[in-house]
Parts: sequence; structure tokens; C-alpha cells
Amino acid sequence: MAKSHENEHPIKAYGYASRDTSGVLSPFTFSRRATGDKDVRFKVLYCGICHSDLHFAKNEWGFTTYPVVPGHEIVGVVTEVGSKVEKFKVGGYVGVGCLVGSCRSCQSCASDLENYCPKQILTYSVPYHDGTLTYGGYSDHMVADEHFVLTWPENLPLDSGAPLLCAGITTYSPLRHFGLDKPGVKVGVVGLGGLGHVAVKFAKAFGAEVTVFSTTPAKKQEALEGLKADHFIVSKDPEQMQSAASSLDGIIDTVSATHPLGPLLSMLKPHGKLVLVGAPEKPLELAAFSIIMGRKIVAGSAIGGIKETQEMLDFAAEHGVTADIELIPIDYVNTAMDRLLKSDVRYRFVIDVAKSLKAP
Amino acid sequence: MAKSHENEHPIKAYGYASRDTSGVLSPFTFSRRATGDKDVRFKVLYCGICHSDLHFAKNEWGFTTYPVVPGHEIVGVVTEVGSKVEKFKVGGYVGVGCLVGSCRSCQSCASDLENYCPKQILTYSVPYHDGTLTYGGYSDHMVADEHFVLTWPENLPLDSGAPLLCAGITTYSPLRHFGLDKPGVKVGVVGLGGLGHVAVKFAKAFGAEVTVFSTTPAKKQEALEGLKADHFIVSKDPEQMQSAASSLDGIIDTVSATHPLGPLLSMLKPHGKLVLVGAPEKPLELAAFSIIMGRKIVAGSAIGGIKETQEMLDFAAEHGVTADIELIPIDYVNTAMDRLLKSDVRYRFVIDVAKSLKAP
Repeated sequence: MAKSHENEHPIKAYGYASRDTSGVLSPFTFSRRATGDKDVRFKVLYCGICHSDLHFAKNEWGFTTYPVVPGHEIVGVVTEVGSKVEKFKVGGYVGVGCLVGSCRSCQSCASDLENYCPKQILTYSVPYHDGTLTYGGYSDHMVADEHFVLTWPENLPLDSGAPLLCAGITTYSPLRHFGLDKPGVKVGVVGLGGLGHVAVKFAKAFGAEVTVFSTTPAKKQEALEGLKADHFIVSKDPEQMQSAASSLDGIIDTVSATHPLGPLLSMLKPHGKLVLVGAPEKPLELAAFSIIMGRKIVAGSAIGGIKETQEMLDFAAEHGVTADIELIPIDYVNTAMDRLLKSDVRYRFVIDVAKSLKAP
Repeated sequence: MAKSHENEHPIKAYGYASRDTSGVLSPFTFSRRATGDKDVRFKVLYCGICHSDLHFAKNEWGFTTYPVVPGHEIVGVVTEVGSKVEKFKVGGYVGVGCLVGSCRSCQSCASDLENYCPKQILTYSVPYHDGTLTYGGYSDHMVADEHFVLTWPENLPLDSGAPLLCAGITTYSPLRHFGLDKPGVKVGVVGLGGLGHVAVKFAKAFGAEVTVFSTTPAKKQEALEGLKADHFIVSKDPEQMQSAASSLDGIIDTVSATHPLGPLLSMLKPHGKLVLVGAPEKPLELAAFSIIMGRKIVAGSAIGGIKETQEMLDFAAEHGVTADIELIPIDYVNTAMDRLLKSDVRYRFVIDVAKSLKAP
């Protein structure tokens, strides 16, 4: 018989968990494994709230295992390292993103693309190598194989840097992979939320000319003044859309609501690339002609590999890229989730875990 | 007032035209321009029948100008050249494909990608530079700017080589552009018709391992024995599909009927590419997750540039790639169109124009 969450492992832990599709999070006592030879144990300081956390809490993607402790934008300070750990020392600052494991032997893993390993292990709500459930960063501490632990750059803020571990790498990786990371390249960013606002910052840091597409005219000032985007287009306005037709080399589409792809594809130059990083629940409509004419591409991209995530953090530290955040105590998390659902956040909630999570 | 088709140009011509959405083709007397400085005039010998000819004859894509003389897989022999023509001489064999003009100055044209020039001029049913309508190869002769005329390789059959000018380049170009042109690469070809059977031949000539996907189990023998494909999968059979899951580097999808993309995307390895060259009338459904997981790509591709079309013909001559054809007289063209609609052809009709088209 399976042991209970409270005592399957030797080390006591506590956090916030959702127990059912209500998605309501409440205090949860559980356990984590002892520090293995290659493990890094760390006290959680900050944890970003990603929209995926909400999907998982409510089992909206259908593969949640309850109880789920969400959180995969985790920053902490090392408290213990295993005997064979090489990269980390007690007292150092570290990050953990969406992954805590992978097969380490497939072609994707061999290419530092653990994010495309078919046996990747998510940071929460899936079975770890030992069969126990993974629990995320809405908790007092974490333990993870050092391969999946990031070194936190000295100049990167711990709180506003946390969302880079998911929102950051999710937009940085496709900008790099699809060649949208060069001065003069014309990049569109669709949707100005947690992902979108970081996409704008990275694209600008690469020297690209950035056009923000949003359904919300009120976001124009934030886009142009706050985020230093070059252009702002209300995607529902055909005249504004027409003015940008055939002008872009690539688009990062962060929208996770169903939306038409045709108007976005018409913004692309020949050979342009539309990269989806948001995942609407229902299929999108794709007219074959809209990509055949101009040899265009619709691509997907999911987070990034561990090596690239480290590069991204280092790049962010060097270029001053962080998320715009609202720092909250953990007992505000359910309200934050409600507000997130209404896109009522500029642009990412980050939980001040160390200050607000109290042992039961 | 516009001049009539019969006398807008000085040179009499005749062929077969459709006059309305019935799509029925009948004899048609018209005229072609005098041979300009850079023009090549040639007697049409053979002309392939492409499914696009049928769409245009019936105005199914909505931009036909009647009367339409279809035909863009045209092989002929030169009868006259303009004073500034450099590449061609009277008596030489030539080909003309889907394009007879482009702007010659945009970035696509400068990159030898006239096929993506926004001002490209199709071989039939659109206005030429001088404002007159272009007429295709179901006719006694053609005249075209030498830039858009291909040199016919010595060893390439005139009749079974004709379909390469559309079906050939449409599949050759994406195989090359998307890196599916190397020994050992695993390539899928969806649909075994005019485009698909040539795609298989080119992919095999590149040394790829080829899997044919078809809804028709009866095509297995033709695929494996006739076309030398390595594998054949009935795309409606979930077990057969499962056996090929995550195995392919890329897929050339030639199907122009609405069909689900999800099962095809699941055939791809991470970073695999699904290239659409068939154009269903209705939009296809694309689940974002199906490309986000594995950083996959859905791309389109349309014919090829003139330089690449010449390369393709030379490659075909060298490797013995031709279309499997049924040679017909031009008065069979309406029956051929009916059979084409029912996919009752192995695999391309070619009209023996020189032998069967008689002056009125």
C-alpha cells in the first residue's frame, strides 16, 4: 500500500495545495525526500504564479494528480547539498523552473533540450523517478537534482527575476531558436500578459523592432512607455492591422484563448514565423493558403532546456530584464488566482514565500 | 474599349478554354504578343493537367478571369527568340511552369524566389505586365520572357517530364528547403496522387527513408513496388499509425481535401516539420499543444523559384525522376478532368498537344 503524502519521505515539508477541481489552495503538510548524492536542497524564497498553476489546480488539462502543490518559478537559497554535487554550495541562490527530471539519454536530452524529452518530469503533479509525486514551489523548501537547478546570477533580483524561470524562458527560447534575436529584426508580440510583457523586454534587449498586438486599446501606453515597444496595434482594428501587413519577420503569440491565426499570418513577410507559446484549449483554424503563399511557418515552442535557461538568466541579469510583478503573501494566493483569471495583474504575481508561509 | 481576345495581339493562337464555371473546355481562338527582345516563342509539345487547372476552369478559388486557357506544365520547342535573348536558340527544348512574370526587384525576387513575389504573374488567367490576360499551355504555342523559361535537360523525357514543372518543383522545393533531402532522413508523404508520387521519387533520390500515408489500402503495392517507398501506412488505421509515432523528421502533405493534422503531427519526432503543399478549401484544425510539445512546425510551400526549378529539372534528369503519366489527346481533356476529380489517374494526365491540337 502506498504511503501517505505526510510520511512517504523522511523530511517534513509544508505548503499550499489544491485537492480537487475547485482549484482552491489551502495549507498542506507533506514530505520530501532526503538529500541524495546529486541533490540540492533549498529554502524557497519567492515563487511566481503562472497561468499553468491555475490550469493544474483545477485539472483543466486533465492530467492533474491531487493533491497538487503548484509553482514552477522558484527562487531559493541552498541549505544542503549532496556529496556529489559540484555546482552549488550552501548559502548560494538558486532557481528551479518547470522541470526537475528527464531521461538524460534521448536525442533531445543529449542536445540540452530536456524540455522536449518525452520522459521529462514536471516540477509538480507528476511521478518522479522514485514513483512519488512531485510538489512545486508553493512550499517551504524544495529538493532537486542539481542538473535541473539554475545558478542565480548575482545582479538578478530574486523576486522579479523568479517569473523568468517559466515566462522568461518560454519567450526567450523561441526568439533565439527562430532567429528573432538580432538588431533590426521585426518582431510581433501577441498578448500583453505574463509571457507577453517579458517577450517584449527580451526582444528589445536583442535589438529587435517590436510591435505589440493586443485586443485592449488601454494597454497602448504601457506597451510603448512602460515596456518600450516600438509600435502598438489593436488586433481587432482592421485598419491598424492593415498598416502592418507583411511587415514582420516573426511573431511570438502568447494568447491562450482561442483566436484567429489568419490575421496574424498576414502580418508576416514571406518566410515569416508565427510561434505559439500559449495553448488554447480548442483547436485553432489554419487556412492552408495562409502559409503556402509566402512559405510561412506556424511553430510551437515549450519553455527551454536547462542550459538555455541558465543562459537566459545570465542574459537577463546582464541586460536588466525582469518581470513586472505584484508581490503577495501566500494567503492571498486564491484571490490572486481569481484576479489572474480576469487578467487583472501587471504582469505577474510573485509569492513572498519566505516571509508569508508559516509552519502549521 | 478593350480589344477582343482574338485580336489584341498580332500573333494568332488557338487552344482549349473554359468560358464559365461549368469548367467545360472547348476550342478557343485567341492571340499572343509578338516576340519581344527578351521573349522566347515556342511550339507547345506536351502539357500536364494539374488539379489547379480544374480549380481555375471552374473558378473554385474565386479569381479566375474567363476565358481561361489552363496549363502550367508546358514543354515545347523554340521557334523564335528576341534580339536580347541569351539562353535559348531556335530548335531547343524548353519548359514553362506556373509563372511567367514577377516584379524582379523585391526581396523574394532578389533571392531567386519569384514564387513568393507578391506581384508574381501566373501562367494563365491573370493580367500580364501589358494588361492583357495570360493564357496557359493547352494551346498551340506560347511566348514568355526568357527569365521564366527553363532549359530542358537532354536526358529528361518531354512527356513524362512535363509534370515536374508544377508537381515536381512543388515537392522538390520543400524537401530541399526543410532539410529533408539527405540520406537517412525519415520523410513521410501524405497522399499518393500527382504531387505525392513525385514527392516519393524525389525523396528516394535524395536517399531518404520514405513512408507513404494514404487512406487507400489498395495503393500499398504501387507505393512499395512501383515507387520504391520503404513503408506504407493506411492513415485511417490507428494501429498502423501508432507504429510510426514520433518517427519522422518531416512530412510533405499533398492532400487537398480537409483532413486532421493532429495524427500527422504525432508521426513527427521533436522538431519535426509538417509541410502543406495541398490547399484544402476549408481551414484545417490545429491544436496548439500538438506543435508546442516537441517544438514542431507546420509550414506551407508553393512551387519554387525559377533557379530552383532549373536545378530540379537537372536533378531529375540525372536521377531518372519523371512522373508516371497517362498521355491523352486534347479532345479527351474534359473526360480527363472528370477522372481527375475522382482521383482516377496514375498519376498525371499529360496532353499530347502537338499531335492532337488541330488548327480550326
